[in-house]
Parts: sequence; C-alpha cells; structure tokens
Amino acid sequence: MVEPATDTKTATKLVPLLKDELDIVIPTIRNLDFLEMWRPFFEPYHLIIVQDGDPSKTIRVPDGFDYELYNRNDINKILGPKASCISFKDSACRCFGYMVSKKKYIFTIDDDCFVAKDPSGKAINALEQHIKNILSPSTPFFFNTLYDPYRGGADFVRGYPFSLREGVPTAVSHGLWLNIPDYDAPTQLVKPLERNTRYVDAVLTIPKGTLFPMCGMNLCFDRELIGPAMYFGLMGDGQPIGRYDDMWAGWCTKVICDHLGLGVKTGLPYIYHSKASNPFVNLKKEYKGIFWQEEIIPFFQAASLSKECTTVQKCYIELSKQVKEKLGKVDPYFDKLADAMVTWIEAWDELNPSAASSAKVTNGKA
Amino acid sequence: MVEPATDTKTATKLVPLLKDELDIVIPTIRNLDFLEMWRPFFEPYHLIIVQDGDPSKTIRVPDGFDYELYNRNDINKILGPKASCISFKDSACRCFGYMVSKKKYIFTIDDDCFVAKDPSGKAINALEQHIKNILSPSTPFFFNTLYDPYRGGADFVRGYPFSLREGVPTAVSHGLWLNIPDYDAPTQLVKPLERNTRYVDAVLTIPKGTLFPMCGMNLCFDRELIGPAMYFGLMGDGQPIGRYDDMWAGWCTKVICDHLGLGVKTGLPYIYHSKASNPFVNLKKEYKGIFWQEEIIPFFQAASLSKECTTVQKCYIELSKQVKEKLGKVDPYFDKLADAMVTWIEAWDELNPSAASSAKVTNGKA
Repeated sequence: MVEPATDTKTATKLVPLLKDELDIVIPTIRNLDFLEMWRPFFEPYHLIIVQDGDPSKTIRVPDGFDYELYNRNDINKILGPKASCISFKDSACRCFGYMVSKKKYIFTIDDDCFVAKDPSGKAINALEQHIKNILSPSTPFFFNTLYDPYRGGADFVRGYPFSLREGVPTAVSHGLWLNIPDYDAPTQLVKPLERNTRYVDAVLTIPKGTLFPMCGMNLCFDRELIGPAMYFGLMGDGQPIGRYDDMWAGWCTKVICDHLGLGVKTGLPYIYHSKASNPFVNLKKEYKGIFWQEEIIPFFQAASLSKECTTVQKCYIELSKQVKEKLGKVDPYFDKLADAMVTWIEAWDELNPSAASSAKVTNGKA
Repeated sequence: MVEPATDTKTATKLVPLLKDELDIVIPTIRNLDFLEMWRPFFEPYHLIIVQDGDPSKTIRVPDGFDYELYNRNDINKILGPKASCISFKDSACRCFGYMVSKKKYIFTIDDDCFVAKDPSGKAINALEQHIKNILSPSTPFFFNTLYDPYRGGADFVRGYPFSLREGVPTAVSHGLWLNIPDYDAPTQLVKPLERNTRYVDAVLTIPKGTLFPMCGMNLCFDRELIGPAMYFGLMGDGQPIGRYDDMWAGWCTKVICDHLGLGVKTGLPYIYHSKASNPFVNLKKEYKGIFWQEEIIPFFQAASLSKECTTVQKCYIELSKQVKEKLGKVDPYFDKLADAMVTWIEAWDELNPSAASSAKVTNGKA
C-alpha cells in the first residue's frame, strides 16, 4: 500500500534550484488546496495557474504563493482570435501557461497530485529531481544498461561508445506516479483496484526513434529548447476527443527532439496521484482516440522532417502540414487540429518575439 | 555498501521452472566453488562448463551438480577444423556451450558472480527472474513508461496502442550486477572505488532500432529463437582484442532480433559481481575495441537485412558478408571474424541438424 507524504513541513529546505528560471504551470477547476503539501518545494517558485472552465468562478490559492492566474476571458483577451487554439473545459488549456511564461523551464503538475514518499519514507521533492534530470544530458543514441549515466554512483558501461558520452541537451523530463497509475479507460475498468506501488529508482533516456506515451501530470521541460512543440491540442469543449492532449504533445515533441538531437528522459521523480478519474467519463472522452492512435502512432513513427527544419517552430509547422495531409483522411478533426497547430505557433511567436527571432541561433547549437 | 547473500540455504526452494528445458553455461579457468552459493537455485538444472585455457588442468565442480565439461581438446575433437571459430584463453569460449546444448533456453553466468540480495535482504534467484522475463513478451515498438507491462502490478499506460499490447516473443533477458559494475578499463581506472549499490526494480524492453552493450556475465536467451546469433567472436589467444565478445554478440543479436521481430529485455535480475578484473590488463585487451567500436556501432546501427533473411542463420550469414565488406576496411581482423562467423553457423548447423532444417518454420511464426 502506498501513501502520500502527510508531513512535508519537516522536509529539508533545499536551496531552490533555478528559482528565477522556472515557472510551475497548473491547470485547474478548483481551489488549489493541494499546494499546501507542496509548499516547502514550490513556494519559492512562480506559479502560472490556468483556470479551466467557467471564468466567473473564483479559484482560491493558498496564501504565500507567488502566482498569476488566467481564466478563459484572459486567454481570449490576450490571444484574440488566436485563442481558438487553446482548449476550453479541458486541462489541455495548460499549454497557454507555457506560452505566457517568460522563463526557460516549465514544470507542470495536476492538482490531484500530491507529494510521494521514497522507499525510505522521505517526502520526494519532485521538482528538484526534474531539475536534476533536465540539467544533465541525455543519451538517445545508444542504450546504457545502468540507466542515467550522469547520476551519482552510475556511469557508462563497458561497450558504450566514448564519442557519445558527452550526451545531448535534455529537453524533457517525464515523471511518474505512485498510487493511481495513468491508465486508459479500458484498463481502469478492467483493473479498478490496481495501484502502482513499485518505486523504480531510475531515470533513463528514451532512445531516438522510439515514441512514448507522455503524461502531462508530472512533467518538466526546457521552454527554450522545445516549448513551441508542447502544444496540447484541441480537446474538451466542442471537440470529439479528450485525454489525448499530453499524448499529442508527446508524439510531436519526441519526433522534433529526435530531429533536432535533443533528449527526453523518463522515470524519477514520482508524485502521488490521489484519485482515479471516472473510467466511464474517460471512455467517452477517449474512445475515438483509441481508434485513432492506431493510425496516429504509425504516422509519427514514420514522420521525417526536412533539413530546413532548424527550429522547433519550423519543425512544428512542417509537422502540421504532414498532419493535414496524412491524418486529415482519418477524420476532419485532424484538419482542424493542423490549423490550430499553425495558430499556436503564430500565437507563441507573438508572445515570445525574441525567442522567435533567436530560435534559429539557439537551434544551431543543438 | 552492498554485500552478497551469505546464506542461500534458507532460500525458499521453488519448483524449478523449465528444469528440463534450460542449460546453465559457465566458462571458467578455476574450481567452481562459486556454485555452492547458487546451489538452491542451480542444482536442479544441467550445467555445461566450458574450460577456458589449459586443458590439462582439472576443474573441480562441487558435488551434487549435474554437468558436462568441455576443455579445448574436447572442442577440437567435436568441431574438427571448425574449432577455429571458438576462442581460446578467453571466456568467449562459452558460446561453444550454447552450440552443444540440446535445450531451448540458455542461462550463462560468470564464475565471479554471486547471489545478490534485494532491498529487503532476500537472496535473489536470478535464474527464476530471467525465466519470468523470457516467458513473457517484449514490447520493442513503443515505450511503456511503467516498464515491463507484463509484471504484476504494472500494465500498459494510457496512450499505448492496443494493437501492440500482445507484444512479441522475448529472445534475450539481460541481467545486471550489484557491487562491481561492468565498466571498461578507462572507467575502472578513473573510478576504482565505484560500486553499484542501486537496485532498480525494473525490467524493460530495449526498443527496436536501439543498440545496447550486452554483457555476458548474467544473461539468458532462447536458443531456438536466437541461439545462432549468440556467437562470442574471436577473442583472447592469438587475437588483437578481448572483452568485446559479449558486445559483438549483443550487436549482432539486437540487429537480428529487430529484423525478426523478437524482443530483448534488460534490468532485473541482479547478481553480485564480486571482483573487478585488473584494469591494466583490461586496457590492453580493450584498447583496439575502444577505437573500433566507434566504427562498429554506426555500422550495426545502419545495418539492414534483406527480406530473404527469414532465419537467424540466414540473417547471420548476411551480416557476416556486411562485416567483411564494411568493417574489413577498418582492420584485417574483421575479415577473419567474418569468416569465423560463417564457420560458426556451419558448426552450429552440424551440431543442431534438426534446428537447422526447422529454423525456417520456427521463424515464420515470429
């Protein structure tokens, strides 16, 4: 039986890493009482709260947190007609927070995620582990059997090419979940009592050319390296699908990271996921995705970007064209999504003018 | 500080899985006292001991073990001129054991490997875990973030395509090492005191298209599915290189598994690796490999097998041609190795006539 940490106040206060370079993005429809447990870890950071749903509702944020909050009215005001690319009544709206952030790094977490304990019973500072992951290189070109070679007590094993030991910049750190695992509706229905109690003490790079199901519950990324690819698509209100927002972002991100030579890590840190969402509601949101992913995934596995795609933006626009061309046949939804992908990039560049112009240079380094 | 299990006699005697379908292959130059610690786990199985070095020396095997032992004279007698493909004075000779086995599965272990303890202090039955790994499918086409989805308490996560959840047959289970990690000579020299104390409670499939450094210290495989690819090359006496025997087998095996749609798993089980080999001696053996692997690995990464390669043998012969053509330029050693690869397959088919003729059929299923 896993349980969340119940007393994080005694957690050692570490010097908050990247304090002025990281925003925490939280999509929510409720009061953010869950932040109390995260206080020792999150309080030094700036929060960007994206209110999902009825903008007239007031979201209470516990005292002492430094935050900005955006509701639908704010999004409409800031983006104008381009606000159409941001989902409504779905946590996919969180990607608006990535866009308005002015920081280099983003950590995003769901409001039903609490502090997990490691096997020794110590409260896990998830953010600290993400930062460690993202500040150390990735190794996408060859598998290291002792996992992340940059962790203390580990290294590259015999037979690992020396020319690859410098690694590549890490763009994404994907964290996991104790207690309620991130299952789809069919699996939830079949295994209603399954809980994840296995603490796997590993971080590893997902190899180049391999796709993975990226979950947005506990995720950190480098906005400068990959931000424009972190679009969570069109979900929720008025859309035929839900619960594929993070998956979509993950597929696009991985293809672009592979193209640009950037790394994606998964594994630690764990958060404690408290509550399984309703599997019946989930099934309704997911069922088209369950069909579609059988075509979407081969599409992304085969996707190839041209040499001219030297920035994330260029990669993303190129990908949007391929989505329209190849997935448009699957359902008209993908035509709409492909257009929204373009709108997203236009909006991103509008809000991040310097990044837009410097993207080319930044990327030349990758 | 990690320590080996010191009392395995109290270990629960489980029903030995695959008792009549698995051989344990051990290459050695010394008395096999290390088997005492493995007695509760290995005693029900048949051992194939390949004596490496002076055939006049007598190797003592503890009482009660069922074994056959081959020294160099035996190898020469059995293989005749084809014995040239089996390395001498190097643990690479172990692959002779794979060839003479009549079983479906092989577990191979080094004689300096002892029983490790899991974090609860329980002695780890490494063989049992390997068998679990190899009897459950692999998932090489898409990454599952909760690792092996077939383990108890785990499953496929949201976003994992349902069409891929059947998995593919597992051909290889690659286990790890606590205490002395499997480092190359330069890393050993730089980190003489590093010990692996991290028990990572995971098994995972190495994705299709990704190579890995396969270590032969603690390795299990399905002879029928992949046996003929498990050639440990030309090392040791009279050869310009050592300590690349398992690496060579791993590269060939992974390329062929990828081609035939077979899986390779890594992670659990751990053994306790007791003694670091001499880094100076290792450096002498390895140094050419350190250069060469910079060309060998890109060669294997780019290697592609034709549709006609429907059996492991055909794949291996095709690969030997590519080795000759592409790596022959790197060093004349690879010409010799390519020839030895062909000899190995000829010898394999001679000793395994039914497998040779049925290989095509077996493979059609994969």
